[in-house]
Amino acid sequence: MDRVYNFSAGPSQLPIEVLQQAQKDMLNFGGTGTSVMEMSHRSQAFQDIIDETEASLRKLMNIPDSYAVLFLQGGPSLQFSMIPMNLADRGDTVAYAVTGHFAQYAIDEASRWCNAVKVSSSKETGFDCIPKITEDDVPDNAKYVHITGNNTVYGTMYHKIPQIGKTPLVADWSSAILGTKIDVEKYDLVYAGAQKNMGIAGVTFVIMKKELLKREISDTIPTMLNYKILFEKGSMYNTPPCWSIYISGLVFKWVEAQGGVDEMVRRNTEKSGMLYDFIDNSKLFSANVRKSDRSIMNVPFTLPDSKQDEEFIAFAERKGLINLKGHKAKGGCRASLYNGMSLEGVKELVKTMKEFEKNHV
Amino acid sequence: MDRVYNFSAGPSQLPIEVLQQAQKDMLNFGGTGTSVMEMSHRSQAFQDIIDETEASLRKLMNIPDSYAVLFLQGGPSLQFSMIPMNLADRGDTVAYAVTGHFAQYAIDEASRWCNAVKVSSSKETGFDCIPKITEDDVPDNAKYVHITGNNTVYGTMYHKIPQIGKTPLVADWSSAILGTKIDVEKYDLVYAGAQKNMGIAGVTFVIMKKELLKREISDTIPTMLNYKILFEKGSMYNTPPCWSIYISGLVFKWVEAQGGVDEMVRRNTEKSGMLYDFIDNSKLFSANVRKSDRSIMNVPFTLPDSKQDEEFIAFAERKGLINLKGHKAKGGCRASLYNGMSLEGVKELVKTMKEFEKNHV
Repeated sequence: MDRVYNFSAGPSQLPIEVLQQAQKDMLNFGGTGTSVMEMSHRSQAFQDIIDETEASLRKLMNIPDSYAVLFLQGGPSLQFSMIPMNLADRGDTVAYAVTGHFAQYAIDEASRWCNAVKVSSSKETGFDCIPKITEDDVPDNAKYVHITGNNTVYGTMYHKIPQIGKTPLVADWSSAILGTKIDVEKYDLVYAGAQKNMGIAGVTFVIMKKELLKREISDTIPTMLNYKILFEKGSMYNTPPCWSIYISGLVFKWVEAQGGVDEMVRRNTEKSGMLYDFIDNSKLFSANVRKSDRSIMNVPFTLPDSKQDEEFIAFAERKGLINLKGHKAKGGCRASLYNGMSLEGVKELVKTMKEFEKNHV
Repeated sequence: MDRVYNFSAGPSQLPIEVLQQAQKDMLNFGGTGTSVMEMSHRSQAFQDIIDETEASLRKLMNIPDSYAVLFLQGGPSLQFSMIPMNLADRGDTVAYAVTGHFAQYAIDEASRWCNAVKVSSSKETGFDCIPKITEDDVPDNAKYVHITGNNTVYGTMYHKIPQIGKTPLVADWSSAILGTKIDVEKYDLVYAGAQKNMGIAGVTFVIMKKELLKREISDTIPTMLNYKILFEKGSMYNTPPCWSIYISGLVFKWVEAQGGVDEMVRRNTEKSGMLYDFIDNSKLFSANVRKSDRSIMNVPFTLPDSKQDEEFIAFAERKGLINLKGHKAKGGCRASLYNGMSLEGVKELVKTMKEFEKNHV
């Protein structure tokens, strides 16, 4: 079959069982005589798919009925705008923890709409840690505090939820949702693009307190950016990204069959632990993230210079380990170890790093 | 294989060759060792896919270099907002021809942003025709005139481009693009959701004069709604809907292999002609659209009462002809005859209508 090990930060490797099921159903899904790609989104067959996908996610994450689950388009980048537009009025204050590349985008987009203030930042130390936020850091009038749960580019992750008192907490968990334990009830809104742990590009999940949907929002906001209307229309105000939703459904069922999120956390801890252990004991490879803040999903690492980074990336690629190049904002190397990446893949990576090290130290 | 004939208004039937290719490539696209769904959008393999898809569309539609082609998310419904936000300032006047359900949505969304005025409407006669627009109808200060080229719900279509003088012309051609001849250079902006003639839900195409990208737009507009930035980033400001783009690429290649848009027009004229001929001579079925404005893509029709509509829809479904129910805004029946629907499918439909008629007249 000649499949490679794909360490991409997203879109990323899917479980082979998901691909095989999608392949099997391609011309005729469940006896409907059509592909999922051809189904009217108003058909019962598709309604069943979206309903089951939502039910499956609610079960995996213990999402209570008091929270809405939305299936949206535009990626987390569009959420960077939708969140302030729906949760704050123009001129209101909103607070952001700036812990990386996408956290910076998030505050920049919020600034277009209202008064977005920084409550913490790890920029000065190259985003190598998760700085603490306390209740005192948060302006009294802040409509919410926004955090980026896992920082894909820099490989840092919140292992504890910040204690910020009564201000609503909003989190981008794009690169760790379903791969780490998220206590939804501790948040007012959690969102994630699907293309890492939840499926493929094209659909973004928003899990939010239904209470928040009661806010009156400005008439100038496009309907397609209005959570309340999208919720009332069951995420089908217009044609949803049907195929991406279907793939998420398959991924959720796969996670469930493997043992749920607890099992994913166990595997991801094992996979990332194996890689960090090797790096920490290596004379060639190093990781600069503060140990207590290390992500179990994205592991950035470097060699002594960028030439060697490139050599290693090319060496690994020849062995069928692809997309190990770091994000351009950080450089170096990065291995993303999402749920779709097997333990075998990480073993191969460590083996390849050892081999490279042997020839280069 | 037990495939049905799917007359859905969108998402809709795809050419079987497209599905077979997608099935074949599912686990390993072009020797990359990954599915297209797993590819990093920053990889060369995906860049090749998006580049080839754009080149293929440019060839099929004769799109000159002076026009940008954008691959976007959010469907035409998000374009209803992006168009006024990018082409007009707050308070500016923009003009809309209201010829149906989605045309009404389009003007409603524009009204959130600026002064959107109606230049023509067929609402009083149940949207049964395309009312003429002349240069005199258009306010002098209008930033653009917006038309809905093909009205999916009501089955009407512009067979001639309105002569509106120098005001820029913007058109939603979602349900007829690649199925009818569109002279791009007569428009300033053409847009279309892919799930009818261009592929599947999740990607929307915008074809616009590059000149329009020079406008300064308001800072309050989200980056994800800013044509200029999306163009500069090659439609990859964030992760694009990779799989939907790939399927569009396959559909475009299929259209090319069949003989291009001219051949699609010939087929669609033949298919719709066969159906209209039958209806016009039927004692049971009727179509109320003005003949000169009939769509070659969507054919709404009715039986003497809604109970018989339902009976016919159920009768056809038992014979493997599905999604013949009209849109709820219009009721009755509707057959959508996009490029993916074969002549054989329409023959089967006519045969089934004849059979039903025989038993009910």
